[in-house]
Formats: sequence, structure tokens, C-alpha cells
Amino acid sequence: MLSLAKRRGFLWPAYDIYGGVAGLYDYGPLGAEMKNNLENYWRQIYLRQEKFLEISCPMLAPKEVFEASGHLKEFTDLVVQCSKCKTSFRADHLAEGLHEHPSTLKRKELWNLLIEHEVCCPDCKGEIEEPVSFNLMFKTAIGAGAAGREGYIRPETAQGMFVNFSTIYRLGREKLPVGAIQIGKSMRNEISPRQGVLRLREFNMMEAELFVHPERKSWPKFAKVADEKIVLLPSGCDSAAEMTLGEAVEKKVIMNEVLAYFVWLTWKLLIDVGLDRSRLRMRQHERTEMAHYATDCWDAEALLGYGWVELVGVADRGCFDVSAHLSHSGAYLTAFDKFDEPKEIELDKVKPNHAKLGPLFKGKSAAVAEALSMLSPDQLPKDGSDLELTISGERISVQAACYQVVRVKEKVSGVKVVPHVIEPSYGVDRILYAILDHAYHKEGDYVRLHLPGKVAPVKIAVLPLVGKDGLDTAAMEIYEELTAIGISCHYDDSGSIGRRYARMDEIGTPFCVTVDYDTLKDDTVTIRDRDSSEQVRIGKERVKSVATRISQDLSFEEVKTGT
Amino acid sequence: MLSLAKRRGFLWPAYDIYGGVAGLYDYGPLGAEMKNNLENYWRQIYLRQEKFLEISCPMLAPKEVFEASGHLKEFTDLVVQCSKCKTSFRADHLAEGLHEHPSTLKRKELWNLLIEHEVCCPDCKGEIEEPVSFNLMFKTAIGAGAAGREGYIRPETAQGMFVNFSTIYRLGREKLPVGAIQIGKSMRNEISPRQGVLRLREFNMMEAELFVHPERKSWPKFAKVADEKIVLLPSGCDSAAEMTLGEAVEKKVIMNEVLAYFVWLTWKLLIDVGLDRSRLRMRQHERTEMAHYATDCWDAEALLGYGWVELVGVADRGCFDVSAHLSHSGAYLTAFDKFDEPKEIELDKVKPNHAKLGPLFKGKSAAVAEALSMLSPDQLPKDGSDLELTISGERISVQAACYQVVRVKEKVSGVKVVPHVIEPSYGVDRILYAILDHAYHKEGDYVRLHLPGKVAPVKIAVLPLVGKDGLDTAAMEIYEELTAIGISCHYDDSGSIGRRYARMDEIGTPFCVTVDYDTLKDDTVTIRDRDSSEQVRIGKERVKSVATRISQDLSFEEVKTGT
Repeated sequence: MLSLAKRRGFLWPAYDIYGGVAGLYDYGPLGAEMKNNLENYWRQIYLRQEKFLEISCPMLAPKEVFEASGHLKEFTDLVVQCSKCKTSFRADHLAEGLHEHPSTLKRKELWNLLIEHEVCCPDCKGEIEEPVSFNLMFKTAIGAGAAGREGYIRPETAQGMFVNFSTIYRLGREKLPVGAIQIGKSMRNEISPRQGVLRLREFNMMEAELFVHPERKSWPKFAKVADEKIVLLPSGCDSAAEMTLGEAVEKKVIMNEVLAYFVWLTWKLLIDVGLDRSRLRMRQHERTEMAHYATDCWDAEALLGYGWVELVGVADRGCFDVSAHLSHSGAYLTAFDKFDEPKEIELDKVKPNHAKLGPLFKGKSAAVAEALSMLSPDQLPKDGSDLELTISGERISVQAACYQVVRVKEKVSGVKVVPHVIEPSYGVDRILYAILDHAYHKEGDYVRLHLPGKVAPVKIAVLPLVGKDGLDTAAMEIYEELTAIGISCHYDDSGSIGRRYARMDEIGTPFCVTVDYDTLKDDTVTIRDRDSSEQVRIGKERVKSVATRISQDLSFEEVKTGT
Repeated sequence: MLSLAKRRGFLWPAYDIYGGVAGLYDYGPLGAEMKNNLENYWRQIYLRQEKFLEISCPMLAPKEVFEASGHLKEFTDLVVQCSKCKTSFRADHLAEGLHEHPSTLKRKELWNLLIEHEVCCPDCKGEIEEPVSFNLMFKTAIGAGAAGREGYIRPETAQGMFVNFSTIYRLGREKLPVGAIQIGKSMRNEISPRQGVLRLREFNMMEAELFVHPERKSWPKFAKVADEKIVLLPSGCDSAAEMTLGEAVEKKVIMNEVLAYFVWLTWKLLIDVGLDRSRLRMRQHERTEMAHYATDCWDAEALLGYGWVELVGVADRGCFDVSAHLSHSGAYLTAFDKFDEPKEIELDKVKPNHAKLGPLFKGKSAAVAEALSMLSPDQLPKDGSDLELTISGERISVQAACYQVVRVKEKVSGVKVVPHVIEPSYGVDRILYAILDHAYHKEGDYVRLHLPGKVAPVKIAVLPLVGKDGLDTAAMEIYEELTAIGISCHYDDSGSIGRRYARMDEIGTPFCVTVDYDTLKDDTVTIRDRDSSEQVRIGKERVKSVATRISQDLSFEEVKTGT
């Protein structure tokens, strides 16, 4: 499959003229078309159907973002270096076969395991050094010289949506739930990337972040899918089984309706874009393998040549992300939960001490007082240390004497809440690879890619039976007409017609239009089906409407019956 | 305009909760829609109309790529640091007003100029230090520890296409001309980015690289556009003037037909996406400001609040790029120019010395001999030093004694040529900003964005006259129907109808559909035109076809007449 992918221009290892770099791939013309098709279909679902808001943030971010998110501290792998040849390896890779889940072990445990089994360098048999923690983010400097600032390339697109929560909330008309999506690249400095396109140092993601009220995780649209069956592998279970979504939520296999809905949406979407249902499952994370932020997580996994491979993670991240940025930035990353009627309640409030603020902050004291009064008491430092506030981009330290916590009775119209986040996170490259893997069928030497019309890189080919006698001109006319309306279409007049069909079957082109001598007489052409090799004769004027509908997965049956 | 952009969610400075980072912006929901629209329209032109091949390469590249391209050495700015406050500045910025083109000065010249005018730190009035050269690429390390490799984030997408020339040539059926495009992000570590979104550290590009035969720069489609007039400002001229493309090529104002064609295509495309023709010009680079690789370059410039701003560069890069990678990598980055009939010619050839190669390279000697015989004599080191070859990713040094140059008579079917490159390079962010700037019209307090349908982020709004009596349900039905077929559509039932129209005019929504009490009686709705505020009543069943055609710039005249 990878040799086909390279030969026909789906994808290939990048920078091969310079010896290549592990973990970096190029998409060729067919791969880029497929990638655009996949991203646009995903966008149609999340943006149009589910009404998420799309944003697009920089990949480069200042250190503060990843300090808050925990990536600076937690987003690490244990790496061992060979003392002789200096090659680096992932410590858990060296421990494969020595433990059931080596990646869940702590540094010391892993080192003891490696010592115990006398593991040495796989390349040169040299002695290995003790594992050290290695941060997987690419680090760089923003700006020049001493004024330069520490920066990192994002390892996921998610943080851009979290730091923008208050803007997203405002643009979503100040209501929960509100969702944001982002499609773009991220990078992870993998220590020794293996498995070709499945573990990349630079990769494409499609991520959705749904901000919900922490106590309201029901979902109106859930009722519509409650009877749908999907294949689940819950944590602690040995084998996957079919279950309806209704049952899964009722039995608390999936924690709540909204998480279950997006588990289902992911399942459905993967099948729509061409994955084989019988090689697909939703697996729940074990406690020990969960990322530092998640409270529950389901992976969509596909069975590939490499075994079961994660394509999508659907996680309930709780309040982790927004809370983290709220407390690190001091920005008001909260939603306002309005009561039906104002209520009189007793509550603790932060009260600025104006007598102290005035002399200390002078012209800025009003702004500091306002910022203080917006805080909730649990945002204050517990240890009496200075409170750090960011006001108009400036960091300001405020001593504990500048405010106090008072209990007041107040008529309030609602309360501020920190939203929880439901995150479906899709790996574009892995999904593309999995689609190709599941679509690939070989009978003898004959290869067909059974791609759905919506992802097929070429929708239709126009082939003159022979490249002369005006058949070429007639075919070229059709080709230009389809191209003009934006359809991805191939023209080919070289070689036998059988060889040309084979070339199109190999790249998954759903239909071929053949222009023959009858076309010149009666304006008809044949349409040939990729999957069955069957042909049907139709009027030339119908080609355009057939071609337009291929991206909606028009079937050959529909072509034949003219529906 | 920027405040509107932020308020309504086109774009805003990134990471504001952490004080922001100069040169980094987020696209909000409206900006992301516009960006997708622009990129897709551009793709439609280059991919479908002009038949370029799209590829997508990593942003991260190993050092070797930028050694070859010259970026490691040449892609620099002169930076001066304040000896007191340590802030860095671009040296040419400090010399503004002291010289006509400070950016064209060499290091010493610039330093003398700054000394002569006693320039000091603009921030703290401290003494400035001598300018030093600062590379504008973001540097990072690929992989861990001692085995890590020096890497850079690309400053343009172009190199990915150059290093892939032989694959692109093969996939384009081994013919010149062949073109590749790439849409994606690049980064430049600007020293002190100013002018908001016009000088970004991370930005989006749409680049096309057309590989042509060095001696064949005519272009069949040129004849079709030869009579088109565009506004040109040739180098050395004081003012821009209208000229036909035919005249420009004939008078050698533009060097050749193919360059002229893409100058025209760029001009046309910018007007299509909404730029005002009277604030647009194509300016030729002066010799001194040309990038290190270009032999001729025309910039599309738009007149904005900041003055004339470059949006697109259309350059003839000669053989620079492909030659550079050919000689650095040793890969066969050449096209084969086949003669109509084989010719007998005398030529110099590299002849491997098998007697030397065998003992030196053993099992690899056949591969080395083959690589040698593929070289042309001008690829050999002139100084007798070892020749560096890359064979299956391995660097191999070959002594001069291993080969000789011999003159032979040969019947040849063609010759190898290193292609020239014509490069239209589009800055997405600047074009988007320029479109907004030119589209913005304010009468009193009333703002309209006159965006063409093809780039407008929201194509159509569906508004119930009032949000009750079933008008809301009827409007919501239309909204859902349009959304289901992928149209970007807004539903809004809050506030007076006038205010809702104003909100849509302000973001450039071409049409509003209003559902009123008559709709419930006779299934008609009104369609309101953004630009004229005029309304017309049409049957509800026509809304879908109207909405579908907005991205093809359907006019209100066409809506009224039903054509």
C-alpha cells in the first residue's frame, strides 16, 4: 500500500533527496485532494450540522500557554541514550515485551526493569544510560537577542480554543453549550518515530472543543441516536461488544449523554469516510494511560496492518483546561449561568480595600479594584502570597492586605461557572492512512481502492476510446466542462483502455466516462463503475449531474436508474 | 476596521490573556470562513483552471534544505540592540527618513548612517550597538539528545516544491511546463513586527511554482489576455500607468509571456476577490531590493491605510532553486527535453573509472558508477576536491581519480535541462486584510462591507420578522435546509429587524431572507440586498437556488429578474 501511495502520489517520506527525516511526510496531489475532502467533510459536520464555530490560531505560542496547560511539565517521554553511539531511544520502546504496558511505568520503575533484563543499545549493543525526561514540544525563541521570548510549537490545536474561551462564548451569544473547532498542524518532537505515517513529528489535526455547563451533560439530540449500535471496548473488559448508545449511558459505561453523542458522531463519521465497520471499535482509556487532563476518554481505533491504531480521541476533560488558563492568566474565562428569576443568596465576595489600593497603584487603582471584585474567593492565593493579576496585558502583584473576603447577602441574577470541555480530537493523517488501508483490495495483481465518492481524490475520469478521430477533442470538452465547475477529474488518452481503467481503479476513481465512436453519432457515453467494472450507456448531457453528485456518494445503481 | 474585525470575530491579536505576542493573530469564525473561501477560490484557479498539482509538505525541515536554498546565509535582517535596555530593533527601521531605501543598505553603510545621525534607542534613548545579522528563520532541534538534528520552520512553502521537483515532474507525466501549488503556514522571526496583521511572525501563504523550459517562456494562453489592460509600475519609473499585456511583453517591460500571464492572473484574481481596481498596481522590483534568487519580480500592491502594501509577488526565479538543490543533494532534479528525432551530437560526458571504484566501494560500486554517469560535467567540483554524492540517502565522497570527462559522439534522443521557475506567491493574511479594507464603507455610523459573494463569510441570513407566531419555526426550517447543503448561513431573531439587517451589512452578508406573516399565507419571503437595501418578494422554493449561487457572485439584479 505504501509503495502504491508513493508511486501514484498520495504521500511519500519528505526530504528524501537529503536522506529523509523520520516522522515527516509529504502529501502528493492525490493525498492533498483526499486530505481536503476529509477536512471539508468534517467541517461540514461540525461547523454546519453541529453549529460549532471555526477559529484558526497560531502554532507558535509563548511559554505561558504551556505552563498553564501543563504541557511544559507533563508532556514528556522518558528517553535513554546509548553511552557509546549516543543514539536516543524511548525507554518504553526498549521495555516492550518486558511489561504489559511499559508506557504507564514511572521513571524509576522503567529503569529498574531495563537493568533487571540487562537491556542494551539495539543499534550497537552499548551500555544505556539512565532514562531522563524529554519534553516533546519543539522549542524556539520568538524575537531577537536578549529581548527574545521562549516559545513552543503547539502539540495540539486545543489550547488556542481554551485561551479564547471568553471570545468564543461572546461570539456564541453568551450561552452554553458552545463549541469551537480548529483544523491545522501541530508538532511533537518524537524521539524515534516509527510506523511511517502513524507517528509523525508534524501532523494534521481536526479538533472540536465543546464547552458545556459542568452539571448539564445531557444532550437534546442524544434521543435520536440512543438506539444506534456501536462497538465498545470499555476499560477493564477483555473484548469489544456491540451496544446501543442508550444502554451505554444507562449502564454508565459512557459517563454522560454529551460524551456518548460525540462518541457516536465520531463512529458514524469514520464509517462515512470509508472505514470498515468490522475493523473499528471505540476503546475506553484505562485510568493509568489517560492524559493528565482527561476524566474519561474513548479512542476510535481501527485494525490496520500494525494492529489496533488510535485515530480519534473523544474525551471529557472536565474543567481542567479552562480552570488552568483562568488561574494562570487571571482572565475571566467563565460563563454566566442566569437564573430564571433573581434569587437572594448569601455568598463570599472579594472586596477591594480602596484605602490600600490608592497609594499603591495610583492611576491604575480603579482597574485593580475592578479586577479584584470580579474574582471569586477560590481564585485567591491560599498561602497569603501576592495575587498575580493581568490588567491590559500588564502583570501586577497585589498584596493580601489590598482585599478581604466578606460574606454578603445579594440578589443575584445568576452565577459564574467554569465550563467543562468535551473534546473530539481527530488525527487527519492516521485517518487518511486507515481509509487507504481499509479501501485497498488486491485480486491477483489487480488493485482497486474502494474509496467512497466523498473522499476519492479523483471523482471521475474522461477517456477517449482512442486518442484520435475527434474522440480526444470530444472527451477533452467534457473534461474541461467538469473541471470548470470545480470537479476533480482526470483526462487520459495514453495506452489501452483496459490499462487506463486499471490506473483509475488503483487510485479509487469511482467512475470512468468513455467517449467512443457512438458518442460522435448520438451524443452518448459509457459510464463504468469502479467496483463492479460494469458499464452503462447514458446521454452526454447527464455527465455533469452525475459528476457533481459523486461527492455525495452517488451509487452506480443510481446512475443506471437515473435517480 | 480592526475594531470591527475584533468585535465581530474576523480576527484579533492572539494570546491577549497572556499579554499578547506581537506578530501573532487568531482568525475568528468570520475570518476563518473568509480564509477558507479565499483559499478554495485560489485553489479552483490554480488547481482546476491552470492544472497545477497540489502538494502539502512539512513546515519543519532539516538544515540541509536551507543551506541549499541560501536562506541560512541570506535570509537575514540587520538588528541593533540598545546597550542599555537591551531591546532589539531592525536597523533599517531606525534609519527611516535618513535614506530613501534603508533596507537596501549593507551593514557598514547602515551603521555609518546611524552614527552620522546620532541615532539612539527609540525606547530609552540609550546608546545603540553595531548592527548584527540576524537570521529570520525559527530554529529548533529535531529529535532528542546528541543525535538531535538542526531544524528550521520554513519561511516560505516554496522549498517543499523544489526538493520534490523530480516527483512532481514524474507525476506530471514527464513534461514541461509542470506546476505545483501549496497552501499553508510559514514563519519568520521578525525582529519587531509592526502594522498589525501585515507583518506576522506566522502567516498563511498560497504559492505556485511553475517549472518551465529555460528557453521556452512563451505561453499559449497568453494570446487570450494580450489585450487586457493592467496598471504597471516598472522599475525606474515614477508613476504607474495602464498598459496592455501584449504591449508590456513587446516592449520588454515584462520579461516574457509566461511571467506576464501570471502577472495578469494575479491581477484578475485580486479584483475577483474584492480588491478595488483603482487602488491596485503591479510594481516591478528594483534590482537592489530583489531577493537573492529572483531575476525579475512584480509585486501586486494595494493602497491601504498604511500606504502601498505588497500582497503577492510574481517572480521569475530562473534556475536558481532547482540548481541549488541539485548541486547540494546530488539528486537528479532535471527534466528531459526530447528531440523530435534523435540527433548525433558531440558532448562531454562523465565516465566512471571502474578499476578505481571496485576496490573503493565494493558492493556499492555499481550504484556509484551509475550515479557518476548520470552527472553532467558542470556538476563536478572545479577544484579537484572530492565529489559528494547522495545514494539511497547515504552521503558518499568520490575522489577525482574515480572518473574522467571524455568527449564522445552520441546519438541522443534529447538532453537534460534544469528547469526555470516562475513563482506567484500570495500572502493570504494580507490579501484578507486588504479585502476588508477595500470593502469597508461607512456612511455616518452605518457600516457596510461590500464583499463579493465568493469571499463573504456568511452568504445569507434568515430572519423572522418577529421571533414568534410560527415565523421563527418557518425561518428556522429554511435556515436548516440551507445549512444542510453546506451554505454558511445565519439565523437571528433578536432585536428589531432594522438592527438585524445592520448587523448583517456590517459583516458583508450579501442577502437577507425575511420571513413575515405573508410567508405563512403564500409561501413567499423577501430577499434584501446588502448594497442597496432594496427588497424583492420571491417564492420560498427559490431561496435554495439563490443561496447556492451567492458564492458565484449572484447579483441582486439576477435575483429580481429570476435569471
